[in-house]
This record gives sequence, C-alpha cells and structure tokens, in this order.
Amino acid sequence: MSTVAPRLRFRDAQIEMAHGAGGKASRRLVEGLIAPLLLGHDATELSDAASVNVNGASIAITADSFVVKPLRFPGGSIGELAVNGTVNDLAVSASKPEALVVTYVIEAGLPTEELEAEVRAMADAAARAGIAIVGGDTKVVEHGKADRMYITTAGIGRPLPGVSLSPKSVRPGDAVILSGPIGDHGITILLARGELEIEADLTSDTRSVFAFIEALANVAAPGLRWMRDPTRGGVATSLNELACDARLSVVLHEDRIPVRDAVRGACELLGLDPLHIANEGQFLAVVAAEYAEAALDAIRRAGCREAAIIGEIGEQPAGTVLGATAYGGTRVIDMLVGDPLPRIC
Amino acid sequence: MSTVAPRLRFRDAQIEMAHGAGGKASRRLVEGLIAPLLLGHDATELSDAASVNVNGASIAITADSFVVKPLRFPGGSIGELAVNGTVNDLAVSASKPEALVVTYVIEAGLPTEELEAEVRAMADAAARAGIAIVGGDTKVVEHGKADRMYITTAGIGRPLPGVSLSPKSVRPGDAVILSGPIGDHGITILLARGELEIEADLTSDTRSVFAFIEALANVAAPGLRWMRDPTRGGVATSLNELACDARLSVVLHEDRIPVRDAVRGACELLGLDPLHIANEGQFLAVVAAEYAEAALDAIRRAGCREAAIIGEIGEQPAGTVLGATAYGGTRVIDMLVGDPLPRIC
Repeated sequence: MSTVAPRLRFRDAQIEMAHGAGGKASRRLVEGLIAPLLLGHDATELSDAASVNVNGASIAITADSFVVKPLRFPGGSIGELAVNGTVNDLAVSASKPEALVVTYVIEAGLPTEELEAEVRAMADAAARAGIAIVGGDTKVVEHGKADRMYITTAGIGRPLPGVSLSPKSVRPGDAVILSGPIGDHGITILLARGELEIEADLTSDTRSVFAFIEALANVAAPGLRWMRDPTRGGVATSLNELACDARLSVVLHEDRIPVRDAVRGACELLGLDPLHIANEGQFLAVVAAEYAEAALDAIRRAGCREAAIIGEIGEQPAGTVLGATAYGGTRVIDMLVGDPLPRIC
Repeated sequence: MSTVAPRLRFRDAQIEMAHGAGGKASRRLVEGLIAPLLLGHDATELSDAASVNVNGASIAITADSFVVKPLRFPGGSIGELAVNGTVNDLAVSASKPEALVVTYVIEAGLPTEELEAEVRAMADAAARAGIAIVGGDTKVVEHGKADRMYITTAGIGRPLPGVSLSPKSVRPGDAVILSGPIGDHGITILLARGELEIEADLTSDTRSVFAFIEALANVAAPGLRWMRDPTRGGVATSLNELACDARLSVVLHEDRIPVRDAVRGACELLGLDPLHIANEGQFLAVVAAEYAEAALDAIRRAGCREAAIIGEIGEQPAGTVLGATAYGGTRVIDMLVGDPLPRIC
C-alpha cells in the first residue's frame, strides 16, 4: 500500500474567500480546525449528511448556507438553490428528503418584493422536490452588514433501504457515473455577474436529483458505494476527496465527460477547468462494475439522458485523480485551489 | 365570545430592522408573508419547533440564525447562544434535544482565533447541553458583506412522552410559570456595546433549559399546556402571542416577576420595559392550576431557584395581556413594537 498525504492542519491567520470555495483551502479549514473541535473527529468520514438515531429511527440530517451572488440568475435563484442544495445533500446520502427548515438573514432596506420572490421560489422548489418546509427563522441586520439576503436550509431525510455508502467500501474496478453535463451552474453565475464580455445561452442546472437517485437505488442498491453532488470545487474536488478518503485512485476518461460548448468555451477563455466548476443539479455515483450498466440505464430513463460512465476506480497512485485523454496520455487532476468563482452557491 | 384582531397583512415596501426584532413587525412579516407562502398556513399554530414523522418516529425540528453584536459578551458569545438557542427551542417544544447541525457565514478577513473561539464555545455548550453536533457548512463572503460572522443552527429532538402542547389547550385558571429573572441577556448585550454610560454587574443568562423542562414534565406532564422561551420581544411578546393564539387573556402579577436591580435600573434609564427585553436562558410554562405548585417546586429543585408563578389565564379581554400592580391597578401590556435593541441574538 502506498501512503497518502498526512492530515492537513489549519495555520492561516485569518479566513479568506478561498476557505469558503469548497476546494483545498475549505477542506483544510474543516479538517484542520472546525471538525476536530466540533465533531470530535477529523472529518475524513464527513459526507453530505450525517446519520443520527432518534426514537429508534435512523434519520439523515444536513444544513447549508447560501450566499450566491446575484440572487437571481438564468435558471434559478438563491431560494431555489437553497431548497435543491439541501435536498441533494440528503439525496446523495441515499436518503429520501422529508422536511426542511429555513432561516433568512436579511439586509435592512431589502425591497419586500425581492424577499417575496425568494419565499415563493422556495415554496415552488419544495413542491417540485416533494419536501415539506415546516419552520424557520428570520433575522435582519443593518444595511451594509449583509449582501441583500443569505438563506440557510437544514433538512432531514429517511435512509433508502438496502443502501450503505462509504468511501471505505469503494473497490478498484468500480465504475464512476456522472449524471449529466458539468459546469452549467458555475459558469451561469459568473456570466450573470456581467463582469465579463462573454454571452452564452446557458442556465443553471439547479434541480432536485432525488428522483434519479431513487431510480438508481432501485436497480443497484447492493452495488452502490459512494455518491456526492459536485457543487463548490466541481467534479475534480469531489473525486479527489473520494480518492483521499478511499486511499485509491480515480481514472477519468475525459472524453466521456459531458460538457456543453458554452461551458467549455467560457472555461477556455478564462483559463478554468470545467472539472472545477460548481454544479447544482448533478451527482456522481461509484457503483460496483457488475451494476454499472443497469445503474446508468436507470438514471438515463429517469431523465438524465446525458449520464455517462466517466471512469473507474484504480489502486495507484492512491489519493489521486488521473485524467486519461483520447490520445493515450494522462494528467493529474487536482482539487480546486484558490477561489476563482466566489459566492457560487 | 369576544373577537380577536384579524390576521395581520404585510404591506411594508421594504424590510427594516424591526422586522427582525421579534415583536409586532416580525409577527406581521411571518404571518402576513412568509408562513402563508412557505408553510401553507397562517402560522397561528407556529411554535418554536415543528413536529414531523420520519420512518415511523415523531421528530421535532427547528432552526435559528444568530447575528448578535458583539460576538462576545459577559456570560457568553454567539457560538454559545447558537447552541443554547436551538436547544431551548426544542426544549420548550417538549422535546429532548438530540442532534445539531451548524453553518457559518464568515466575513473575509476574520481572524482565525475569533472563529476558533466560537467553534470551541459551541463544542462546550453542546457538551453541557448533552447534544451532539453532527455536521454543517461554512461559507465566506467578502469583507463588508457580513459583520464578522453569522451562525445558523438547526436541531432535532425526540418528543417527551405524555406531553401535548398547544395554545388551544390553554384554559382560564391555568397558571403562568416563569423560570427566573428577566432581561439579563438583552441588557447585557446593550451594555456590552459600550454606547451607553451605564455600568452594571450583569451577565447573559444563556444556558440550556432542557433539564428544568424535563424535571417539570416529570411531575406535571398531563397538566402542561404551553411553553415558550421568551427571547426577542421578551416575556410580554411571548404572552401576547399566547393570548392571541388561545383567544384568552393573561393576567400578570407584576410584583411577582423576578427582575434584577441592574436590569430594572437600566430599563428605567432607557425607557424600556423589562417585559420586552430578550432572555436566552428562561422559559414560560402554562400549567393546569392543580399541577402548578408541583411544577414550580420541580423546576426550583432542578436549579431555577427564582422561578415563580407570575400570573394566570383569564377569559376577557381575549387576546390581551394585563398587568396587575400590587396596588390593585391594571395596565395593558403590549407586544414589543419597533426595535429598541437590534441584533440581540
């Protein structure tokens, strides 16, 4: 067995934007400071939702804050994102989303119609996702002490029967499935800020992925090892975390990864890798090889028509994601470093 | 039967500080805009935590955002408040707090030691309250887009057996119990801002109240009708909400309400009523008269030595809180109006 990198320590004197970007700096902050103090462990087992036992029932629970800028963008808004993001954290933990609670931190002076639009967007997104919003809280801070509004959602779900997910159960030869085209959300937000001279016909992919995951679990539950929604930091960061936690490698066939032309074009202009761009309606699944085709077929039929098997799990070099090109070359694909796209969700 | 005020409608053009202060304006925002859209009802049945059924188990769930300023104050800090606040929302819903999730929205440039202090404060408060912190999220916004940090906590709990709370079950003649002195938290925060020329030996009352409520339920579960932790808006606002929701009156014996000299003095200087000042470690309970003495005795022995029966439920005028003075007079005690103490929690 090869060794993997030692646990990261957090020594930065102050918190910077990169610590919230979902990449290497975020992982260092969470693993090196927050998780050891708050959760009593080093977070290498941290997934999108935690599992707790209440009254004899196993419950999945998760929370996320949303600070996306601008509040509204092609294909969605902060409210829709806040519902779908928490729904998806439950879904990729193989849980059926059951109930949400919502809190708002609002900047004084926000026009009521902007708040109302987001409350309506949340109600609509919750109805589409089949989840009940059951409570919440509202705080107001002075003008200049927030950026219009921040929304936090927490959700609970019921674990899907027969599914047990852990990076520790991932094995060499397992297939890596991706639900659809990557980078739509991140590039949409970037373009919506209007700071770039780029126009593209692109919308955020924000949506609930639960129906797809339910279809996947129906045919492949015994072979389902790991799932993640590749939001901040993109597919590359999620798979690097998997490689580290599983102490294995991930080999991607880059030509099989669906990327829209508009996303590829914007990334080329900006020097970004689509694998680092945030998604809000996609998921990654690692499935035992014998279940891979059935799993792919199920999620395609459920609506993910561009889903693909984009790679497989390898042994060496442990903790690494490799990209294999169509021409036989390979490259190391790192986690996101820095914060090229602040406040993407 | 008398009538009560018609449901409030939200017509304000923009969100102001008062809408987050927990008083009349907050209720108008929640009842007139957020709850009808988000929860599908008018929130008159809204309590501190919602009850949902997951996997055959009844679960209480709640969430709160914390924006208190300053972050640290005599007797506590934002992190401690964020744990105790959510623990107490579960406790006054007659639920045993089981698990918390935590999110941070951090302003770029925050010294790491300030974040670390709050993470430690949360871990300590959770240990004291006997609740596990199981997950969370961290976001960072640009310098100037938050005020150091905001914390959101969501929690789930297990309903205490044999307790059923609702304003609808409150009856004339029921006793109103208060757990201890009021106003300590709000006045401590006000003084900690250093804007006033007042000094007082006062600390926030932030603490978990679950142990007291468990002791109360052990002796008085069948007679326990309603509970609330009187945070923003204070005891007066909580009891006005009860009076409205129950369509009954509340008669307080003001001389029985414990108020420390420092709080009374500061309130007199500032023209504030201690009944409108926020508490973070007290609770109100309405108990059937035949259980009142046993309930009071139980919470006193559990540690609330200054707990008192401060009033009783009446019939008329419905929707009103009356204060009876030691000299035989009465006054109407209204909800908090406006926001004399912004960002108190």
